[in-house]
Amino acid sequence: MRKLTVIKIGGNIIDNPDQLKNFLNNFSAIKGPKILIHGGGKIATKLAADLGIEAKLIDGRRVTDEQTLDIVTMVYAGLINKNIVAGLQSYGCNAIGLSGADGNCIKAIKRPVKTIDYGWVGDLLENSVNAESLIAFLNADFTPVFSAITHDGEGRLLNTNADTIASSIAVALSSHFETSLIYCFEKKGVLRDVNDEGSVVSEIKEKDFIPLQKEGIVTDGMIPKLHNAFDAINKGVKEVLIGQASDLPLLKENKFGSRILK
Amino acid sequence: MRKLTVIKIGGNIIDNPDQLKNFLNNFSAIKGPKILIHGGGKIATKLAADLGIEAKLIDGRRVTDEQTLDIVTMVYAGLINKNIVAGLQSYGCNAIGLSGADGNCIKAIKRPVKTIDYGWVGDLLENSVNAESLIAFLNADFTPVFSAITHDGEGRLLNTNADTIASSIAVALSSHFETSLIYCFEKKGVLRDVNDEGSVVSEIKEKDFIPLQKEGIVTDGMIPKLHNAFDAINKGVKEVLIGQASDLPLLKENKFGSRILK
Repeated sequence: MRKLTVIKIGGNIIDNPDQLKNFLNNFSAIKGPKILIHGGGKIATKLAADLGIEAKLIDGRRVTDEQTLDIVTMVYAGLINKNIVAGLQSYGCNAIGLSGADGNCIKAIKRPVKTIDYGWVGDLLENSVNAESLIAFLNADFTPVFSAITHDGEGRLLNTNADTIASSIAVALSSHFETSLIYCFEKKGVLRDVNDEGSVVSEIKEKDFIPLQKEGIVTDGMIPKLHNAFDAINKGVKEVLIGQASDLPLLKENKFGSRILK
Repeated sequence: MRKLTVIKIGGNIIDNPDQLKNFLNNFSAIKGPKILIHGGGKIATKLAADLGIEAKLIDGRRVTDEQTLDIVTMVYAGLINKNIVAGLQSYGCNAIGLSGADGNCIKAIKRPVKTIDYGWVGDLLENSVNAESLIAFLNADFTPVFSAITHDGEGRLLNTNADTIASSIAVALSSHFETSLIYCFEKKGVLRDVNDEGSVVSEIKEKDFIPLQKEGIVTDGMIPKLHNAFDAINKGVKEVLIGQASDLPLLKENKFGSRILK
């Protein structure tokens, strides 16, 4: 099977033009088929504030109302996505910027209302990712670059979690490619001591997950990220890594971040 | 040769949700390979006004400064493009939304500064359109949907004229497909009497162009549109039509708008 690299970058890189440029250069240098998924960063929050649109929270959870959906569509699928694609093209990577609506690549469902109505937020199902469309792009030597906007198949766009999109894409393609999924975030990996970048936990097995939470090593945003990571490794993805974008060149030496194992 | 339909819609349709929905339904019904190019409409102007960004004009000509480029990228390549794609998907048309940066489909040059510096505006050259990428998408049964944002190949996006993009795409594909280029605007065609939608000039030859201008029948925005139309018909495009989006079903009966002839 051919190898496929699926990389997700977070808002911390998007918000730093120099880091982003460096990452796009490193990403372009990765050989073989590859897919990029990017988060949003602070631009959408700033645009909403400039327009006087207040963040809508219910029980502390962010809600995507109509105006917010328009803003994230503009910023994520427009401004950020197209600038990333133009940047990759300048490094010789034949990128195409996509939302889940494009090529019907990712069809989500609007999150069902239980206690909270999250608004225009998409949840992914087992069959949400359209492997056929993705394979058509990869076989034509394009590099898909996804913003975290999906659609419902009925004409509505949906704001969707980028980590989950990355994991779902990797899983959907794992029967066609020997797939590596790499989550890039602001640290060098899962750190035993959050203040010591030298304390990367090199391997994390699922049986370590609960103990790591109890020890306070895995907290906050890392918990759902690891859930996505274990989901991927359990559903056929060959390799799952979590680390820092600037360390991408270490992939070749097998020294990148924390490795997720079954 | 296979037939290809290239359609350009203007801001008047974008700004009217019901007309847009009707158009997307009609467009989806067109059989065979097809490409859509869309203009911008008033949303970008409104967003700029809401953000307190004044339109920058030099000698009455609009200039695309850095902020304006960000706004048109957000609105054209993000909000409008992705909503059109989601709409087409809901009608069963497998659309993919693209800028010129995606797949390196349209590489423009920043307009050279002569008397006026137009800012981040792209001009197209003879070889700007990458037919190979477009054919790859069409052969995989995708329907490309272009916003009027291109790139320079060096990482910069450029604001570009949508009529010119449509004409250049049609020309670039005319040696691979029997290509029809259809400009949709707010009237039923070029009108002999601007107040009488029944007075459509059914055929316009290039030799009629100057007389029609002298008679005041072809004025303002129609002049560059007709330049693009004649450019297309002279460079191998099989059929060029100008008319109203809501009349698209008349294409089959050969009764759509004004026909441009050599």
